[in-house]
Amino acid sequence: MPRAYGATLPDWVFDELAAVPGALPSVEERMALVHRLAARNPLEGSGGPFAALVVNTADGEVVSAGVNLVLSSGLSAAHAEVVALSLAQLRVGTWDLGAQDAADRELVVNWRPCAQCYGATMWSGVRRLVIAGEGPELEELTGFDEGPMREDWAEQLRRRGIEVVSDVLREQAVEVFAGYRRVVAERGLTVYNARGATAPASDTPSKGAVVA
Amino acid sequence: MPRAYGATLPDWVFDELAAVPGALPSVEERMALVHRLAARNPLEGSGGPFAALVVNTADGEVVSAGVNLVLSSGLSAAHAEVVALSLAQLRVGTWDLGAQDAADRELVVNWRPCAQCYGATMWSGVRRLVIAGEGPELEELTGFDEGPMREDWAEQLRRRGIEVVSDVLREQAVEVFAGYRRVVAERGLTVYNARGATAPASDTPSKGAVVA
Repeated sequence: MPRAYGATLPDWVFDELAAVPGALPSVEERMALVHRLAARNPLEGSGGPFAALVVNTADGEVVSAGVNLVLSSGLSAAHAEVVALSLAQLRVGTWDLGAQDAADRELVVNWRPCAQCYGATMWSGVRRLVIAGEGPELEELTGFDEGPMREDWAEQLRRRGIEVVSDVLREQAVEVFAGYRRVVAERGLTVYNARGATAPASDTPSKGAVVA
Repeated sequence: MPRAYGATLPDWVFDELAAVPGALPSVEERMALVHRLAARNPLEGSGGPFAALVVNTADGEVVSAGVNLVLSSGLSAAHAEVVALSLAQLRVGTWDLGAQDAADRELVVNWRPCAQCYGATMWSGVRRLVIAGEGPELEELTGFDEGPMREDWAEQLRRRGIEVVSDVLREQAVEVFAGYRRVVAERGLTVYNARGATAPASDTPSKGAVVA
Protein backbone atom coordinates (compact mmCIF):
# COMPACT_ATOMS: atom_id res chain seq x y z
CA MET A 1 0.00 0.00 0.00
CA PRO A 2 1.30 3.50 -0.76
CA ARG A 3 2.10 5.57 2.33
CA ALA A 4 1.43 8.99 0.86
CA TYR A 5 -0.78 10.68 -1.70
CA GLY A 6 -0.74 14.10 -3.26
CA ALA A 7 -1.19 16.25 -6.34
CA THR A 8 0.97 18.76 -8.20
CA LEU A 9 -0.05 21.87 -10.14
CA PRO A 10 1.20 21.87 -13.74
CA ASP A 11 3.67 24.53 -14.86
CA TRP A 12 1.23 26.29 -17.15
CA VAL A 13 -0.81 27.41 -14.15
CA PHE A 14 2.21 29.35 -12.89
CA ASP A 15 2.66 30.85 -16.35
CA GLU A 16 -0.92 32.15 -16.15
CA LEU A 17 -0.33 33.51 -12.66
CA ALA A 18 2.85 35.27 -13.78
CA ALA A 19 0.85 37.05 -16.48
CA VAL A 20 -1.38 38.89 -14.00
CA PRO A 21 -0.58 41.23 -11.10
CA GLY A 22 0.01 39.54 -7.73
CA ALA A 23 -2.96 41.43 -6.32
CA LEU A 24 -6.38 41.52 -7.99
CA PRO A 25 -8.47 44.25 -6.37
CA SER A 26 -11.92 43.39 -7.77
CA VAL A 27 -13.85 40.13 -7.65
CA GLU A 28 -14.27 40.40 -11.41
CA GLU A 29 -10.49 40.38 -11.92
CA ARG A 30 -10.22 37.35 -9.64
CA MET A 31 -12.97 35.50 -11.47
CA ALA A 32 -11.54 36.37 -14.89
CA LEU A 33 -8.32 34.58 -13.91
CA VAL A 34 -10.34 31.61 -12.64
CA HIS A 35 -12.16 31.43 -15.99
CA ARG A 36 -8.87 31.48 -17.91
CA LEU A 37 -7.50 28.62 -15.83
CA ALA A 38 -10.76 26.66 -16.08
CA ALA A 39 -10.94 27.02 -19.87
CA ARG A 40 -7.33 25.91 -20.36
CA ASN A 41 -7.34 22.97 -17.93
CA PRO A 42 -9.11 20.34 -20.06
CA LEU A 43 -7.01 21.33 -23.07
CA GLU A 44 -3.92 20.58 -21.01
CA GLY A 45 -5.35 17.23 -19.96
CA SER A 46 -5.31 17.64 -16.19
CA GLY A 47 -9.05 17.34 -15.64
CA GLY A 48 -12.38 19.10 -16.11
CA PRO A 49 -13.06 22.82 -16.79
CA PHE A 50 -12.85 23.96 -13.19
CA ALA A 51 -10.47 26.29 -11.36
CA ALA A 52 -10.26 28.10 -8.05
CA LEU A 53 -8.24 30.74 -6.23
CA VAL A 54 -7.68 31.53 -2.58
CA VAL A 55 -7.40 35.31 -2.27
CA ASN A 56 -6.98 37.75 0.59
CA THR A 57 -10.33 39.51 0.46
CA ALA A 58 -9.11 42.96 1.49
CA ASP A 59 -6.07 43.48 -0.71
CA GLY A 60 -6.64 40.91 -3.45
CA GLU A 61 -3.37 39.07 -2.98
CA VAL A 62 -3.52 35.67 -4.66
CA VAL A 63 -2.60 33.12 -1.98
CA SER A 64 -2.97 30.02 -4.16
CA ALA A 65 -4.48 28.64 -7.34
CA GLY A 66 -6.03 25.29 -8.15
CA VAL A 67 -7.38 23.45 -11.16
CA ASN A 68 -9.13 20.10 -11.38
CA LEU A 69 -6.31 17.51 -11.26
CA VAL A 70 -8.37 14.31 -11.16
CA LEU A 71 -6.92 12.91 -14.37
CA SER A 72 -3.29 13.96 -13.84
CA SER A 73 -3.15 12.96 -10.16
CA GLY A 74 -5.36 9.87 -10.34
CA LEU A 75 -7.24 11.10 -7.28
CA SER A 76 -11.01 11.64 -7.44
CA ALA A 77 -10.84 14.20 -4.61
CA ALA A 78 -8.41 16.51 -6.43
CA HIS A 79 -11.03 19.03 -7.50
CA ALA A 80 -9.94 22.63 -8.09
CA GLU A 81 -11.27 23.80 -4.73
CA VAL A 82 -9.41 21.12 -2.75
CA VAL A 83 -6.21 21.86 -4.66
CA ALA A 84 -6.40 25.62 -4.06
CA LEU A 85 -7.38 25.26 -0.40
CA SER A 86 -4.65 22.70 0.29
CA LEU A 87 -1.92 24.78 -1.36
CA ALA A 88 -3.10 27.84 0.55
CA GLN A 89 -2.98 25.93 3.83
CA LEU A 90 0.58 24.76 3.12
CA ARG A 91 1.63 28.28 2.19
CA VAL A 92 0.06 29.82 5.29
CA GLY A 93 1.27 27.01 7.53
CA THR A 94 -2.03 25.94 9.07
CA TRP A 95 -5.06 23.87 8.12
CA ASP A 96 -7.21 26.79 9.28
CA LEU A 97 -7.22 29.65 6.80
CA GLY A 98 -9.46 31.57 9.19
CA ALA A 99 -7.26 31.28 12.25
CA GLN A 100 -7.44 34.16 14.67
CA ASP A 101 -5.53 37.28 13.53
CA ALA A 102 -5.35 35.96 9.97
CA ALA A 103 -6.38 38.13 7.07
CA ASP A 104 -9.84 37.20 5.81
CA ARG A 105 -9.45 34.84 2.89
CA GLU A 106 -11.90 33.80 0.20
CA LEU A 107 -12.31 30.96 -2.25
CA VAL A 108 -13.13 32.06 -5.81
CA VAL A 109 -14.61 29.30 -8.03
CA ASN A 110 -16.18 29.20 -11.49
CA TRP A 111 -19.42 27.58 -10.26
CA ARG A 112 -21.12 26.46 -7.07
CA PRO A 113 -18.89 23.76 -5.56
CA CYS A 114 -19.94 20.12 -5.83
CA ALA A 115 -21.13 18.17 -2.80
CA GLN A 116 -17.58 17.27 -1.76
CA CYS A 117 -16.08 20.73 -2.20
CA TYR A 118 -19.02 22.33 -0.41
CA GLY A 119 -17.87 20.51 2.73
CA ALA A 120 -14.20 21.15 1.97
CA THR A 121 -14.93 24.88 1.78
CA MET A 122 -16.76 24.75 5.11
CA TRP A 123 -13.81 23.16 6.94
CA SER A 124 -11.07 25.23 5.30
CA GLY A 125 -11.33 28.46 7.26
CA VAL A 126 -12.12 30.74 4.33
CA ARG A 127 -14.50 33.54 5.27
CA ARG A 128 -16.09 34.06 1.88
CA LEU A 129 -17.08 31.97 -1.13
CA VAL A 130 -17.23 33.83 -4.45
CA ILE A 131 -18.85 31.91 -7.31
CA ALA A 132 -19.68 32.75 -10.91
CA GLY A 133 -23.11 31.21 -10.51
CA GLU A 134 -25.23 28.18 -9.79
CA GLY A 135 -27.92 26.35 -11.70
CA PRO A 136 -28.38 23.61 -14.27
CA GLU A 137 -26.00 25.01 -16.90
CA LEU A 138 -22.94 23.22 -15.53
CA GLU A 139 -24.54 19.76 -15.55
CA GLU A 140 -26.35 20.37 -18.85
CA LEU A 141 -23.32 21.63 -20.75
CA THR A 142 -20.55 19.49 -19.27
CA GLY A 143 -22.35 16.32 -18.20
CA PHE A 144 -20.74 16.47 -14.76
CA ASP A 145 -22.72 15.58 -11.64
CA GLU A 146 -22.57 18.25 -8.93
CA GLY A 147 -24.04 15.88 -6.37
CA PRO A 148 -26.93 16.35 -3.97
CA MET A 149 -27.07 19.72 -2.22
CA ARG A 150 -29.42 21.05 0.42
CA GLU A 151 -31.78 23.85 -0.52
CA ASP A 152 -30.30 25.97 2.29
CA TRP A 153 -26.68 25.31 1.31
CA ALA A 154 -25.71 29.00 1.35
CA GLU A 155 -27.45 29.69 4.66
CA GLN A 156 -25.54 26.75 6.17
CA LEU A 157 -22.28 28.43 5.12
CA ARG A 158 -23.37 31.78 6.51
CA ARG A 159 -24.22 30.15 9.84
CA ARG A 160 -20.60 29.06 10.01
CA GLY A 161 -19.33 32.54 9.31
CA ILE A 162 -18.79 32.16 5.55
CA GLU A 163 -20.30 34.81 3.29
CA VAL A 164 -21.50 33.78 -0.18
CA VAL A 165 -21.17 36.06 -3.22
CA SER A 166 -22.68 34.78 -6.48
CA ASP A 167 -23.16 35.84 -10.11
CA VAL A 168 -19.67 37.20 -10.71
CA LEU A 169 -18.99 36.95 -14.47
CA ARG A 170 -21.69 34.32 -14.75
CA GLU A 171 -22.07 34.47 -18.53
CA GLN A 172 -18.37 33.89 -19.01
CA ALA A 173 -18.61 30.78 -16.85
CA VAL A 174 -21.32 29.38 -19.07
CA GLU A 175 -19.15 30.19 -22.09
CA VAL A 176 -16.30 28.15 -20.59
CA PHE A 177 -18.63 25.17 -20.10
CA ALA A 178 -20.00 25.53 -23.64
CA GLY A 179 -16.45 25.69 -24.98
CA TYR A 180 -15.61 22.53 -23.09
CA ARG A 181 -18.62 20.81 -24.59
CA ARG A 182 -17.44 21.76 -28.09
CA VAL A 183 -13.94 20.47 -27.42
CA VAL A 184 -15.31 17.18 -26.11
CA ALA A 185 -17.32 16.78 -29.30
CA GLU A 186 -14.57 17.88 -31.68
CA ARG A 187 -11.88 15.70 -30.17
CA GLY A 188 -14.12 12.70 -29.74
CA LEU A 189 -13.57 12.58 -26.01
CA THR A 190 -15.87 10.24 -24.14
CA VAL A 191 -17.72 11.71 -21.21
CA TYR A 192 -18.71 8.79 -19.10
CA ASN A 193 -19.94 8.06 -15.63
CA ALA A 194 -17.75 6.14 -13.24
CA ARG A 195 -20.91 4.46 -12.05
CA GLY A 196 -22.29 3.85 -15.50
CA ALA A 197 -20.63 0.47 -15.97
CA THR A 198 -22.96 -1.35 -13.60
CA ALA A 199 -25.24 1.27 -12.11
CA PRO A 200 -27.84 2.41 -14.63
CA ALA A 201 -29.63 4.65 -12.14
CA SER A 202 -27.02 7.38 -12.44
CA ASP A 203 -26.86 9.45 -15.58
CA THR A 204 -24.18 12.03 -15.02
CA PRO A 205 -20.48 11.71 -14.16
CA SER A 206 -18.64 13.32 -11.29
CA LYS A 207 -16.30 16.23 -11.97
CA GLY A 208 -13.45 13.87 -12.70
CA ALA A 209 -15.24 11.49 -14.97
CA VAL A 210 -13.94 12.53 -18.37
CA VAL A 211 -11.28 10.62 -20.24
CA ALA A 212 -10.01 10.49 -23.78
CA MET B 1 3.26 29.32 -3.65
CA PRO B 2 3.79 25.58 -3.09
CA ARG B 3 3.35 23.46 -6.21
CA ALA B 4 2.21 20.27 -4.53
CA TYR B 5 0.29 19.09 -1.50
CA GLY B 6 -0.15 15.73 0.11
CA ALA B 7 -0.41 13.67 3.26
CA THR B 8 1.45 10.65 4.65
CA LEU B 9 0.16 7.84 6.86
CA PRO B 10 2.16 7.43 10.07
CA ASP B 11 4.09 4.20 10.69
CA TRP B 12 1.87 3.02 13.53
CA VAL B 13 -1.00 2.52 11.09
CA PHE B 14 1.09 -0.04 9.24
CA ASP B 15 1.92 -1.72 12.55
CA GLU B 16 -1.81 -2.10 13.20
CA LEU B 17 -2.38 -3.45 9.70
CA ALA B 18 0.45 -5.98 10.12
CA ALA B 19 -1.25 -7.29 13.25
CA VAL B 20 -4.37 -8.45 11.38
CA PRO B 21 -4.85 -10.83 8.44
CA GLY B 22 -4.62 -9.25 4.99
CA ALA B 23 -8.22 -10.32 4.35
CA LEU B 24 -11.07 -9.61 6.76
CA PRO B 25 -14.08 -11.70 5.70
CA SER B 26 -16.81 -10.07 7.83
CA VAL B 27 -17.87 -6.44 8.05
CA GLU B 28 -17.48 -6.71 11.83
CA GLU B 29 -13.80 -7.61 11.47
CA ARG B 30 -13.32 -4.69 9.09
CA MET B 31 -15.04 -2.28 11.45
CA ALA B 32 -13.15 -3.57 14.48
CA LEU B 33 -9.89 -2.58 12.75
CA VAL B 34 -11.34 0.82 11.88
CA HIS B 35 -12.27 1.35 15.54
CA ARG B 36 -8.75 0.45 16.70
CA LEU B 37 -7.23 2.94 14.27
CA ALA B 38 -9.77 5.62 15.20
CA ALA B 39 -9.16 5.21 18.93
CA ARG B 40 -5.38 5.39 18.57
CA ASN B 41 -5.22 8.31 16.12
CA PRO B 42 -5.77 11.23 18.53
CA LEU B 43 -3.35 9.67 21.02
CA GLU B 44 -0.72 9.73 18.28
CA GLY B 45 -1.49 13.34 17.49
CA SER B 46 -2.41 13.03 13.82
CA GLY B 47 -5.98 14.23 14.12
CA GLY B 48 -9.45 13.34 15.37
CA PRO B 49 -10.84 9.88 16.29
CA PHE B 50 -11.74 8.84 12.76
CA ALA B 51 -10.47 6.04 10.52
CA ALA B 52 -11.47 4.32 7.30
CA LEU B 53 -10.60 1.33 5.15
CA VAL B 54 -11.11 0.53 1.50
CA VAL B 55 -11.82 -3.18 1.24
CA ASN B 56 -12.66 -5.58 -1.57
CA THR B 57 -16.22 -6.46 -0.65
CA ALA B 58 -16.15 -10.07 -1.84
CA ASP B 59 -12.91 -11.37 -0.35
CA GLY B 60 -12.22 -8.82 2.37
CA GLU B 61 -8.78 -7.84 1.13
CA VAL B 62 -7.71 -4.55 2.68
CA VAL B 63 -6.83 -2.23 -0.20
CA SER B 64 -5.93 0.80 1.92
CA ALA B 65 -6.30 2.42 5.32
CA GLY B 66 -6.76 6.02 6.37
CA VAL B 67 -6.91 8.05 9.56
CA ASN B 68 -7.68 11.72 10.07
CA LEU B 69 -4.43 13.54 9.24
CA VAL B 70 -5.61 17.15 9.51
CA LEU B 71 -3.17 18.06 12.28
CA SER B 72 -0.14 16.18 10.97
CA SER B 73 -0.60 17.23 7.33
CA GLY B 74 -1.87 20.75 7.91
CA LEU B 75 -4.66 20.10 5.39
CA SER B 76 -8.30 20.50 6.41
CA ALA B 77 -9.40 18.05 3.69
CA ALA B 78 -7.25 15.17 4.99
CA HIS B 79 -10.10 13.34 6.68
CA ALA B 80 -9.81 9.56 7.12
CA GLU B 81 -12.11 8.85 4.17
CA VAL B 82 -10.16 11.05 1.74
CA VAL B 83 -6.88 9.50 2.91
CA ALA B 84 -8.12 5.91 2.47
CA LEU B 85 -9.77 6.60 -0.89
CA SER B 86 -6.73 8.45 -2.23
CA LEU B 87 -4.29 5.72 -1.19
CA ALA B 88 -6.57 3.07 -2.70
CA GLN B 89 -6.73 5.01 -5.98
CA LEU B 90 -2.95 5.26 -6.12
CA ARG B 91 -2.60 1.55 -5.36
CA VAL B 92 -5.16 0.54 -7.98
CA GLY B 93 -3.84 3.02 -10.51
CA THR B 94 -7.03 4.92 -11.28
CA TRP B 95 -9.17 7.63 -9.74
CA ASP B 96 -12.18 5.36 -10.30
CA LEU B 97 -12.31 2.50 -7.79
CA GLY B 98 -15.44 1.26 -9.56
CA ALA B 99 -13.99 1.10 -13.06
CA GLN B 100 -15.41 -1.58 -15.28
CA ASP B 101 -14.12 -5.08 -14.54
CA ALA B 102 -12.81 -3.95 -11.14
CA ALA B 103 -13.66 -5.90 -8.01
CA ASP B 104 -16.42 -4.20 -6.04
CA ARG B 105 -14.80 -2.08 -3.35
CA GLU B 106 -16.26 -0.56 -0.22
CA LEU B 107 -15.40 2.23 2.20
CA VAL B 108 -15.64 1.26 5.88
CA VAL B 109 -15.85 4.22 8.30
CA ASN B 110 -16.54 4.62 12.01
CA TRP B 111 -19.48 7.00 11.51
CA ARG B 112 -21.51 8.59 8.75
CA PRO B 113 -19.10 10.71 6.70
CA CYS B 114 -19.15 14.49 7.11
CA ALA B 115 -20.48 16.77 4.37
CA GLN B 116 -17.15 16.80 2.52
CA CYS B 117 -16.48 13.07 2.72
CA TYR B 118 -20.04 12.27 1.68
CA GLY B 119 -19.22 13.84 -1.68
CA ALA B 120 -15.75 12.31 -1.77
CA THR B 121 -17.30 8.87 -1.31
CA MET B 122 -19.74 9.53 -4.14
CA TRP B 123 -16.98 10.42 -6.62
CA SER B 124 -14.54 7.68 -5.60
CA GLY B 125 -16.02 4.68 -7.36
CA VAL B 126 -16.65 2.57 -4.25
CA ARG B 127 -19.80 0.48 -4.56
CA ARG B 128 -20.66 0.26 -0.88
CA LEU B 129 -20.41 2.45 2.21
CA VAL B 130 -20.24 0.59 5.52
CA ILE B 131 -20.65 2.75 8.63
CA ALA B 132 -20.83 2.04 12.34
CA GLY B 133 -23.78 4.37 12.69
CA GLU B 134 -25.21 7.84 12.39
CA GLY B 135 -26.88 10.20 14.81
CA PRO B 136 -26.06 12.91 17.33
CA GLU B 137 -23.57 10.91 19.40
CA LEU B 138 -20.54 11.95 17.32
CA GLU B 139 -21.19 15.67 17.60
CA GLU B 140 -22.32 15.43 21.23
CA LEU B 141 -19.33 13.43 22.44
CA THR B 142 -16.54 14.86 20.32
CA GLY B 143 -17.71 18.40 19.58
CA PHE B 144 -16.98 17.97 15.88
CA ASP B 145 -19.35 19.39 13.27
CA GLU B 146 -20.47 16.85 10.65
CA GLY B 147 -21.84 19.58 8.43
CA PRO B 148 -25.24 19.91 6.78
CA MET B 149 -26.59 16.72 5.20
CA ARG B 150 -29.73 16.08 3.18
CA GLU B 151 -32.42 13.90 4.71
CA ASP B 152 -32.18 11.57 1.72
CA TRP B 153 -28.38 11.30 1.82
CA ALA B 154 -28.38 7.48 1.68
CA GLU B 155 -30.93 7.34 -1.13
CA GLN B 156 -28.75 9.76 -3.13
CA LEU B 157 -25.85 7.32 -2.80
CA ARG B 158 -28.02 4.37 -3.82
CA ARG B 159 -29.18 6.27 -6.91
CA ARG B 160 -25.53 6.44 -7.92
CA GLY B 161 -25.01 2.72 -7.42
CA ILE B 162 -23.56 2.87 -3.90
CA GLU B 163 -25.13 0.59 -1.28
CA VAL B 164 -25.22 1.79 2.34
CA VAL B 165 -24.79 -0.60 5.29
CA SER B 166 -25.16 0.92 8.77
CA ASP B 167 -25.05 -0.09 12.43
CA VAL B 168 -21.95 -2.27 12.27
CA LEU B 169 -20.38 -2.31 15.79
CA ARG B 170 -22.25 0.89 16.60
CA GLU B 171 -21.80 0.74 20.37
CA GLN B 172 -18.06 0.38 19.99
CA ALA B 173 -18.00 3.51 17.82
CA VAL B 174 -19.72 5.47 20.57
CA GLU B 175 -17.18 4.08 23.04
CA VAL B 176 -14.34 5.41 20.88
CA PHE B 177 -15.91 8.88 20.84
CA ALA B 178 -16.51 8.76 24.61
CA GLY B 179 -12.91 7.70 25.13
CA TYR B 180 -11.75 10.60 23.00
CA ARG B 181 -13.84 12.97 25.09
CA ARG B 182 -12.18 11.67 28.26
CA VAL B 183 -8.70 12.10 26.79
CA VAL B 184 -9.47 15.64 25.71
CA ALA B 185 -10.57 16.46 29.26
CA GLU B 186 -7.70 14.66 30.99
CA ARG B 187 -4.97 16.14 28.84
CA GLY B 188 -6.45 19.61 28.84
CA LEU B 189 -6.75 19.69 25.07
CA THR B 190 -8.78 22.56 23.71
CA VAL B 191 -11.56 21.67 21.30
CA TYR B 192 -12.24 24.82 19.40
CA ASN B 193 -13.97 25.93 16.29
CA ALA B 194 -11.97 27.34 13.42
CA ARG B 195 -14.82 29.77 12.91
CA GLY B 196 -15.19 30.57 16.58
CA ALA B 197 -12.66 33.39 16.61
CA THR B 198 -14.85 35.83 14.76
CA ALA B 199 -18.03 33.95 13.88
CA PRO B 200 -20.21 33.40 16.93
CA ALA B 201 -23.00 31.76 14.93
CA SER B 202 -21.14 28.47 14.70
CA ASP B 203 -20.86 26.32 17.79
CA THR B 204 -19.07 23.14 16.73
CA PRO B 205 -15.71 22.55 15.09
CA SER B 206 -15.00 20.62 11.93
CA LYS B 207 -13.37 17.22 12.15
CA GLY B 208 -9.95 18.78 12.14
CA ALA B 209 -10.56 21.47 14.69
CA VAL B 210 -8.80 20.06 17.73
CA VAL B 211 -5.40 21.18 18.90
CA ALA B 212 -3.39 20.95 22.08
